[in-house]
Amino acid sequence: MIPRPRLLRHLSGSYELTSGAIVSGPAELAGAVLAALPGLDLRPGDAGAIDLRLDPDLGPEAYQLVVGSRGVEITAGGRAGAFYAGQTLHQLLPDGSYRFSPGASWSVPGVRVEDGPRYSWRGLHVDVARHFFPKREILRLIDLMAVHKLNRLHLHLVDDQGWRVESRAYPLLHEVASHRPRTASNYYHEPESYDDLPHGGYYTLDDLAEMAAYARAREVVIVPEIDVPGHASAILAAYPSLGPTGEPFEVLDRWGISPAILSPLPPTVEFLTTIFDELIGALGETPYFHIGGDEVVLDHWAASPEIDAYRESLGMSSMGPLHAWFLRRLADVLAERGSRAVVWDEAFVSGELRHDTVVMPWRGMEVGRRAAAAGHDVVATPVFPLYFDYAEAASPDEPMAIGDTITVADVAAFVPAPDGWPDEERSRIIGAQAQLWTERIPDARTLDYRTWPRACALAEVTWSGSSGADFTERLEAHLGRLDALGVEYRPSDGPRPWQRRRPHRPGVIPVAAVMERLDHSTHDAESTRPSV
Amino acid sequence: MIPRPRLLRHLSGSYELTSGAIVSGPAELAGAVLAALPGLDLRPGDAGAIDLRLDPDLGPEAYQLVVGSRGVEITAGGRAGAFYAGQTLHQLLPDGSYRFSPGASWSVPGVRVEDGPRYSWRGLHVDVARHFFPKREILRLIDLMAVHKLNRLHLHLVDDQGWRVESRAYPLLHEVASHRPRTASNYYHEPESYDDLPHGGYYTLDDLAEMAAYARAREVVIVPEIDVPGHASAILAAYPSLGPTGEPFEVLDRWGISPAILSPLPPTVEFLTTIFDELIGALGETPYFHIGGDEVVLDHWAASPEIDAYRESLGMSSMGPLHAWFLRRLADVLAERGSRAVVWDEAFVSGELRHDTVVMPWRGMEVGRRAAAAGHDVVATPVFPLYFDYAEAASPDEPMAIGDTITVADVAAFVPAPDGWPDEERSRIIGAQAQLWTERIPDARTLDYRTWPRACALAEVTWSGSSGADFTERLEAHLGRLDALGVEYRPSDGPRPWQRRRPHRPGVIPVAAVMERLDHSTHDAESTRPSV
Repeated sequence: MIPRPRLLRHLSGSYELTSGAIVSGPAELAGAVLAALPGLDLRPGDAGAIDLRLDPDLGPEAYQLVVGSRGVEITAGGRAGAFYAGQTLHQLLPDGSYRFSPGASWSVPGVRVEDGPRYSWRGLHVDVARHFFPKREILRLIDLMAVHKLNRLHLHLVDDQGWRVESRAYPLLHEVASHRPRTASNYYHEPESYDDLPHGGYYTLDDLAEMAAYARAREVVIVPEIDVPGHASAILAAYPSLGPTGEPFEVLDRWGISPAILSPLPPTVEFLTTIFDELIGALGETPYFHIGGDEVVLDHWAASPEIDAYRESLGMSSMGPLHAWFLRRLADVLAERGSRAVVWDEAFVSGELRHDTVVMPWRGMEVGRRAAAAGHDVVATPVFPLYFDYAEAASPDEPMAIGDTITVADVAAFVPAPDGWPDEERSRIIGAQAQLWTERIPDARTLDYRTWPRACALAEVTWSGSSGADFTERLEAHLGRLDALGVEYRPSDGPRPWQRRRPHRPGVIPVAAVMERLDHSTHDAESTRPSV
Repeated sequence: MIPRPRLLRHLSGSYELTSGAIVSGPAELAGAVLAALPGLDLRPGDAGAIDLRLDPDLGPEAYQLVVGSRGVEITAGGRAGAFYAGQTLHQLLPDGSYRFSPGASWSVPGVRVEDGPRYSWRGLHVDVARHFFPKREILRLIDLMAVHKLNRLHLHLVDDQGWRVESRAYPLLHEVASHRPRTASNYYHEPESYDDLPHGGYYTLDDLAEMAAYARAREVVIVPEIDVPGHASAILAAYPSLGPTGEPFEVLDRWGISPAILSPLPPTVEFLTTIFDELIGALGETPYFHIGGDEVVLDHWAASPEIDAYRESLGMSSMGPLHAWFLRRLADVLAERGSRAVVWDEAFVSGELRHDTVVMPWRGMEVGRRAAAAGHDVVATPVFPLYFDYAEAASPDEPMAIGDTITVADVAAFVPAPDGWPDEERSRIIGAQAQLWTERIPDARTLDYRTWPRACALAEVTWSGSSGADFTERLEAHLGRLDALGVEYRPSDGPRPWQRRRPHRPGVIPVAAVMERLDHSTHDAESTRPSV
């Protein structure tokens, strides 16, 4: 069973696809099909098992796939379409084809598929700041995303707890801000405790270039995030002069929202411009660049006479609009470099953004609709049901999570742009993205557990526009592939014994209560958030 | 600089090798070169940049490589030789060629290389029992081994602390014996403490088949180890009736040598025969199969009237020879299946083994020489300098290790079969292997730290017969490649801040003292070892 192509008809007959088979057609499309079926050792050639044709009228990500007794025919709207046709062809093969199995031969059932994505942004966000994940884990995640036709990898590269990328211009960022001596291990209001294990790591600019090229070959765009002006403890630990007070900070070793904030004055803009140049220089073409804007505690700005004078010189009545102005300024810098800014929804609530800035409404789709109505492109990122750091069950067996409950069925039931919304709003919802915040995800094995199979449901929602109740019928097909791919997903009946880790505290932070609180906060542009 | 080919001459001129270049010659050899240079997107064809020729007279792993201004010529003794020629060619390219870099073009300096390995067994051992490492980490380790021309991956699949492979015949092995609820975190004689994190995991038989095929394509042979009759807590937790007493056991949650032992009676041989069949069935051709035989506490055998009667019925005067008899019996079972048994050195000291059984002298090369003199093939595995779970420096900055000190220079200085030994002994030393016991290696990032760059030195020793003092001149070239490969190795000046983990206790277990104690113990066949 194929997960959710737009139109699928079963045809009579089948085709025997063997390792080493020939792919013919335009070189770029053939390369995409080869990349989609890496274990099959396909080869480009003049005429063969898989025949490719380009039809730009279909749209760049769309394709038609016909499997008959004489072979496979693919018509693709562009390289991406050919890549996705290859992925759908792969889904028609047995699960074993997702393993390394040289010399194998697979029987492909006859089908006719006409397919293309509902949304252009099919995203996963990974917070590599709270816990660092080495390059190899990111490359593997890109492989898994590609299999699921997900196409945006949003890397949260800095937060209070760490800075994760080399800077040749500001080397203290990777030398000082990339590690902390210990990490909080208590759960919310339990007595403070720490693990006494140093944690850290960073990507070199060469690593970033490699990750971007690897992603591009799999039709995934890396969206870097430098989260400013808040969440600044790590940056200020390296360069305290970028803060409003100049006071020293340390890379934070506990969770929560810190008062650490960058100054909005020109030296900060200059600093960030240099960082943008370094990152874009490494990444290559960078259509989107996330600049954060969330959970900003503006107290230190308000307390600074210099910043207050600057605000007044810009003719602004309060610090909220200055926050929006600062992000607008950075978005202008990015636009000069060919990148569109992306922000969390607080930035939209604070004041006017650049018109082409993309908004991520994490506090719920109400604020997302307001951003869409104001003309912004919007990527649906609401805590419920797209914060995958929440537990999938309210059970003491569940590994410790930020809260509960978000089930795989909750994700499958999500509709980013419901039919009932006005067309102006619906047309601005360009996709959806799951968030993997990693305060409670200390390592790659736990990342697997939190991500899958919920990301399978997200893939269906973003590709097909909805997944719905029949997702559960397709879940087994998804899990078979994940097994072959070696993904340590969460089984439907709960964690395996060794996945339990530290016991969960059911109901301590129920996601419904979180959503209610967040929805309220989006109505108040000046609301500051609790500090650590 | 190329690490240690046997004969290297620099020629004038160079050749520009571009991504997508054509490899011509016998299909199997071409496939090997493609596998050795995966990032270069080479293609098989009729005439091209790399021209291959087979010359079986060279020996299966040997090759000649000539790079001139008109292209690359490789003459290989077999598929392995072509694969290693490809690896040497790769080493001639800049470090960036070890990254994913499609469309790149590399200038290769003119050279003439005549090369072949000194030893046929160039091994790494990983203890996946004390801590489990998911399939993806094993596949990556195979990639790293291949780059270094290492060719034997010894997987220690069971120990007191866990059983790591699916069994369809004995499912409690993977259901019950594959996990423990907690793990000791104290250092030797410190007060007992535990981490309260469940730990576990296992490979399915399909995973094992995939790992073996992946390894074979990279000229690496997987050597499975089912360590018997000692180290049996996990097996007995699943099937207590296989023990001499039938008493219940639990998967061990702390380190040290346990008294848990399998009975040597026929039901155990039958059980292990079934396990061998399952594993060999999955792995495919399995030239070597390790059956352990180390650190056996024979007390429970001696206390069992049934086993004592069995010993007497076999005409043996004590339990030591029964230990050797048991392993000989298993080696016969393996021989019928086309596999040679491999054992740790205690088994050799206990009594007579099958003549074709390979011995691994972990307690030092003295016992290794005795095994060689007795006609056994021997793989050098002495604690010093090949136990990579020992720290590389006696420094409190070093992450906690089993003891100290084994430096990268110690490994480089190791000579498996010194010139001064008699030829009968030298000719029986078929190679060397580093051991990664994982009591103090809880995760993949720490595994990287302990393995590299010491495994680079091991690779030179096993390929060239020695590495020596000039290794340090080549170390930078090794580290550049490891950086590109994303390996989190130990820097020459000590751990990075986030690699420190829990502080080391310098000198608590000095390796010199360990070696002295071990050497003494090898002279006493009946010596039992301290229990937990």
